[in-house]
Amino acid sequence: MIARNVERRRQLQDAAIRVLANAGARGLTYRAVDAEAGLATGTASNYFPSRDELVAQVFERISERLAPDPATVDELARRPPSRSLFADYVRDIVARLTADRETTLALFELRLEATRHAGVAEQVRRWLEQTFASDVAFNAGAGLPGGRAEIALFHYAIDGLLLDRLTVPIDPGTPTDSIVADLVDRLLARAD
Amino acid sequence: MIARNVERRRQLQDAAIRVLANAGARGLTYRAVDAEAGLATGTASNYFPSRDELVAQVFERISERLAPDPATVDELARRPPSRSLFADYVRDIVARLTADRETTLALFELRLEATRHAGVAEQVRRWLEQTFASDVAFNAGAGLPGGRAEIALFHYAIDGLLLDRLTVPIDPGTPTDSIVADLVDRLLARAD
Repeated sequence: MIARNVERRRQLQDAAIRVLANAGARGLTYRAVDAEAGLATGTASNYFPSRDELVAQVFERISERLAPDPATVDELARRPPSRSLFADYVRDIVARLTADRETTLALFELRLEATRHAGVAEQVRRWLEQTFASDVAFNAGAGLPGGRAEIALFHYAIDGLLLDRLTVPIDPGTPTDSIVADLVDRLLARAD
Repeated sequence: MIARNVERRRQLQDAAIRVLANAGARGLTYRAVDAEAGLATGTASNYFPSRDELVAQVFERISERLAPDPATVDELARRPPSRSLFADYVRDIVARLTADRETTLALFELRLEATRHAGVAEQVRRWLEQTFASDVAFNAGAGLPGGRAEIALFHYAIDGLLLDRLTVPIDPGTPTDSIVADLVDRLLARAD
């Protein structure tokens, strides 16, 4: 019964992410989530008693879906810290966000929705703060170049790049990986 | 009569931008635009016979609203080309997009809407292509540093920065101007 509930919850979380990506934040209603999940009307509201709780569960699922592949993490963690290792981490992040297009578009929708709803803004803030802090801590712990200020610059550049690549690219002839390499080359200060 | 029409058209264009910013692309209906403009139902559909035409007119108005101040252009154009002049141009762009929050949010909405509607995608593509090409031509004409590849990097970084600053900033303690200065310092290759 618990396993069944976990599975159904995930089904609703994934449906909510699809609704966000396909219909925008304005379309995120219980009814739309139920319909997208192919479940009876009333199911989503049973699992998520408020829209804030629904959004909180969407963020939980986004974090799961965007988590790195353990094999990739193992492989990268075995290498000594360097600029090129940092570049490979960034490339992996961009590849994950590009591959899970729905989740990345849902995130953009939630960030825009944050301008309209204080409850959503609070959850976006919490999620971004956690992500940013954990990126900074990871770099420090792994001895990688790039402190807090630089990691913020990477957040801006990578978000803008993903928005471009997942919607209407301005420079479709240049492969994403080479743009990422170029960004790391320029944004990451040299130790000299 | 023509003057009156021009004024009314602008009123509808501005209302459509507000609807996009406040309700998202999903909320952009003739009815919502009429209501936002405080005009009788049916006015927007008289001026814009299709949703594509409405979106085209929104882009026209966005370009007008984001146009640089002629005095600023004059002042900047008098200076010899340099990295710091380029930085001042970028700072001016960011300042305009930040000040006209509604327009910038409307642009983000339209870019996400491009993933859902081919007609919107076509117009977003045309607008971005024009903007990007004119930025590249401007830099070349003014003898400023920064070629096509670098200007693309600035588009990504500035879009991501604006998305951050206009929604939920990850690093609110750092002023936007100093982030822009930092981006120019790092992204613009040195002549050496």
